[in-house]
Amino acid sequence: MPDLPRTPRTTHRRLPKRGSHDIALIHAILDEGLVCHVGFVVDGQPYVLPATYARMGDRLVLHGSLSNRMFRALVSGAPTCVTVSLLDGLVLARSALHHSMNYRSVVVLGSARAVEGREAKRAALEAIVEHVAPGRLLQVRRPSDSEVDGTLVLELPIAEASAKVRSGPPMDEEADLALDCWAGVIPLRVVAGEPVPDAHVPAGMAAPEPELP
Amino acid sequence: MPDLPRTPRTTHRRLPKRGSHDIALIHAILDEGLVCHVGFVVDGQPYVLPATYARMGDRLVLHGSLSNRMFRALVSGAPTCVTVSLLDGLVLARSALHHSMNYRSVVVLGSARAVEGREAKRAALEAIVEHVAPGRLLQVRRPSDSEVDGTLVLELPIAEASAKVRSGPPMDEEADLALDCWAGVIPLRVVAGEPVPDAHVPAGMAAPEPELP
Repeated sequence: MPDLPRTPRTTHRRLPKRGSHDIALIHAILDEGLVCHVGFVVDGQPYVLPATYARMGDRLVLHGSLSNRMFRALVSGAPTCVTVSLLDGLVLARSALHHSMNYRSVVVLGSARAVEGREAKRAALEAIVEHVAPGRLLQVRRPSDSEVDGTLVLELPIAEASAKVRSGPPMDEEADLALDCWAGVIPLRVVAGEPVPDAHVPAGMAAPEPELP
Repeated sequence: MPDLPRTPRTTHRRLPKRGSHDIALIHAILDEGLVCHVGFVVDGQPYVLPATYARMGDRLVLHGSLSNRMFRALVSGAPTCVTVSLLDGLVLARSALHHSMNYRSVVVLGSARAVEGREAKRAALEAIVEHVAPGRLLQVRRPSDSEVDGTLVLELPIAEASAKVRSGPPMDEEADLALDCWAGVIPLRVVAGEPVPDAHVPAGMAAPEPELP
């Protein structure tokens, strides 16, 4: 796949070597994240709220309610920024100021619009469930017509977007290398714990094995 | 501690029972997070970028560079929103649309300002290292005067802020409870992997044990 176009708004000015417009990398980060952070502006004030989402090809889809400030702002076509960040490790240097994080992040800029049509909406809602819990749709009751009709679904094209990645060891000053201090990376990852059945699960029914990245 | 005041901007309209202005809860979530997402507006476009931070009493502190679009916007006093989200679990319901996440999040609204004075800046920079790697400061070279002077440090009062929490099992429709389908919560947590020393660590030097929440 070709890179996405660089725009002035997605050009990395600080540490440009960490920036990328590689579509495959952008998609991989979006597919690995479970939560995005959505930015929107109301009366000049920015808000940032976490949300679930899915990638469908070259679009992000989100679902919500018009009683939510965020979705009311987004459905009116206000500019938005959707950011997904994956924290890969703590970077422990020999000097305080060279401490850092290893991460992969994607920023998608643009304006969302409402997905119209019951089947298109249903497909997006199902994609969000599949994104978080692959295979789950085959086991659960799928969205009814009235559930679909009562839910707002938004899509945002992944057209103006960029990724940023830091990886590898700390970058200490030459003079600090002799300090008597461990330095390196503490890898971090998200893991699933023991499933907690709700009160209505029959005894002996097996829990699903979540597929975390 | 008393609650923070509710403002129209921090009043939860959607699912208000999940919202809180409890200062102790807000502080606990901010202390547990490793990364925040900072929202700011340039030419009407919102941006959301991940950043490291620390809480110092009733302020958040961030550090960066004026070559960074975000810090240039923030130091000029533009309104901002700093959000910290902790993902606690996947909530698997018996119907697609009742799937959810358990999470704890905090939103802090306001305007940041530059921290002035070398010692105040140094204290904030050291707090950020201690937030991510408690105890680390005692082992590493602390910020030199020129490092402190060359770094922009911002503070944001935790004055207009709110928390939002979802916990517990899925909320299925009564009619779905009889479906032959597991339902419940898959707890998620961040864990540290095997430390990766950099190329300059002497053989046999022990790695630190990170204190993750």
